[in-house]
Amino acid sequence: MEHDTVRALHWTGETLVLLDQRRLPHEIQYKECASAADVADAIQTMIVRGAPAIGIAAAYGAALAVRQHADPAKREAELQYLAQARPTAANLHWALQRMRAKLANGADAETMAAEACRVHAEDVRANHYMGQLGMGYFTVKGAVLTHCNTGSLATGGYGTALGVIRAAYAAGRVSCVYVDETRPWLQGARLTAWELQQEGIPVRLLVDAAAAALLRLESVRWVVVGADRVAANGDVANKIGTYGLALAAKAQGIGFMVVAPGSTLDFATVDGDAIRVEQRDPDEVLAFGGQLLAPAGVTAWNPVFDITPAELVDVLVTERGAVERPNRERMAALRA
Amino acid sequence: MEHDTVRALHWTGETLVLLDQRRLPHEIQYKECASAADVADAIQTMIVRGAPAIGIAAAYGAALAVRQHADPAKREAELQYLAQARPTAANLHWALQRMRAKLANGADAETMAAEACRVHAEDVRANHYMGQLGMGYFTVKGAVLTHCNTGSLATGGYGTALGVIRAAYAAGRVSCVYVDETRPWLQGARLTAWELQQEGIPVRLLVDAAAAALLRLESVRWVVVGADRVAANGDVANKIGTYGLALAAKAQGIGFMVVAPGSTLDFATVDGDAIRVEQRDPDEVLAFGGQLLAPAGVTAWNPVFDITPAELVDVLVTERGAVERPNRERMAALRA
Repeated sequence: MEHDTVRALHWTGETLVLLDQRRLPHEIQYKECASAADVADAIQTMIVRGAPAIGIAAAYGAALAVRQHADPAKREAELQYLAQARPTAANLHWALQRMRAKLANGADAETMAAEACRVHAEDVRANHYMGQLGMGYFTVKGAVLTHCNTGSLATGGYGTALGVIRAAYAAGRVSCVYVDETRPWLQGARLTAWELQQEGIPVRLLVDAAAAALLRLESVRWVVVGADRVAANGDVANKIGTYGLALAAKAQGIGFMVVAPGSTLDFATVDGDAIRVEQRDPDEVLAFGGQLLAPAGVTAWNPVFDITPAELVDVLVTERGAVERPNRERMAALRA
Repeated sequence: MEHDTVRALHWTGETLVLLDQRRLPHEIQYKECASAADVADAIQTMIVRGAPAIGIAAAYGAALAVRQHADPAKREAELQYLAQARPTAANLHWALQRMRAKLANGADAETMAAEACRVHAEDVRANHYMGQLGMGYFTVKGAVLTHCNTGSLATGGYGTALGVIRAAYAAGRVSCVYVDETRPWLQGARLTAWELQQEGIPVRLLVDAAAAALLRLESVRWVVVGADRVAANGDVANKIGTYGLALAAKAQGIGFMVVAPGSTLDFATVDGDAIRVEQRDPDEVLAFGGQLLAPAGVTAWNPVFDITPAELVDVLVTERGAVERPNRERMAALRA
């Protein structure tokens, strides 16, 4: 059984259609992007999110820029607008670099679109491969815990961490998937729970703060998360809360697995301290659904990601191979 | 400067008036309790919450039971109904035991009410004493992090952990109070932020999952929390998320302080594993303000408290004294 029916991005041949992830799970709405600026805005406002999906969207955005503008200066302005949409995901810059290389070789609009489709297809293929590779570590059937959304919605399809969980479930090695709700955007509650429900995989939600207690009490075998950027020494930038999960897993002797495609690896960044972590609007924390949660006038600290030191990672799974206990030396094996 | 103007409970002489904490910070509404059953229901539905405040409310509830019923069997039924309102807070049973002892000595309604007022006044006095005692550990001015609400709203007045923070702020030793929002009930966002704002103390909110990153990045000197029950070996039951905070504080070498009155200490419970942790309705996680967060049909794991092992506690502050690195032997110094 495939357990994979949801898609975040669809290329029509002329436009990029995105499933609006801000409205899930209660509304299924699509946003059609006809220009690179449309795509950049969709990334910035989180219509599309998840590091690999952001990269794929940006690739299509670059194709749209070339389709729309013959003037190299205008194309360049569009590419730069795409590049600044969100700062932390490595995949955004990786994808734009790949598309720029194609363009520098004189690619036309059709060739650029074909390249974006290749970026997309390669991501899905990488996810399937990582699913099998990561699943090999699930030697005893049990529950798993995941954070945020790393599934079909966060990628070209299938998913990174959720791809591993999907593969392990299909192989009979996962009894239940515990999912952190993932404040403030609730990607766990809104997206991961929805994806797993669509696929018939047993899911149970918890507030983020309950994760450490869960690992102490329930028979969770693995904590499996994605990544937005992995530095040269194996430090991992991922959704806020990941670092705390890694500490709790370590305290309980539970395995901590990071699953990310090669496009998330950033060998130009020496370690986690050098990663720029996006801070978003405090209102994301202070209000919900138009309702103010806190008293008016109170402010919030709202970093979107945190840094998990490499020494807390038991295994990093990529389509280039898996590295146990990553450090600078072992990470070198994953260079493209 | 006192920085303490808010009150959760008010005894009129005939009834107990509770500030409805479910509606804060946007509505100031009071619930008048004329019977023990009213009080028990207010505790169960979280109109009043916070272990010390629950204990004080129960003491007034016992006084109301004696005022209302001459029949010992009916009084006993009311006391039992109060006792089952919530399972984890030690203070509830401590207060009822104290009121039962008074009753067994033949106390009438007036004497019972006077005893409840004494329970209330002693709690406020204990909080002020703990504030001074705990503040002594703040040797360098810096930021602090707290979780849930442990202030005037959670106690007879002034607060436990928030009392220490209040005292330290008044003494110029606190630059900023970071407050976890504390899902699912958002006591941090709704109550602690509101209390601190009322008192003019600088406050900054964060999602619970951001706490570990905060301790890694910002100059937080102490994590200060309350407790709902402390076992004989020093293990602490407190609001879900406390255990993860203790792990993160330990990883960063930041002090972890628990502040709780003697009525929270439970020497009859050998350790944290023997503490019954309340599980509440999954809907508290799955919906917010009448809005469903997760897809319909998904369920949630919703424990209200977690257990922090004593070895993660740097100092336990009570009105009977402070114990550093609590264990069974050192805890004995805090026996009444």
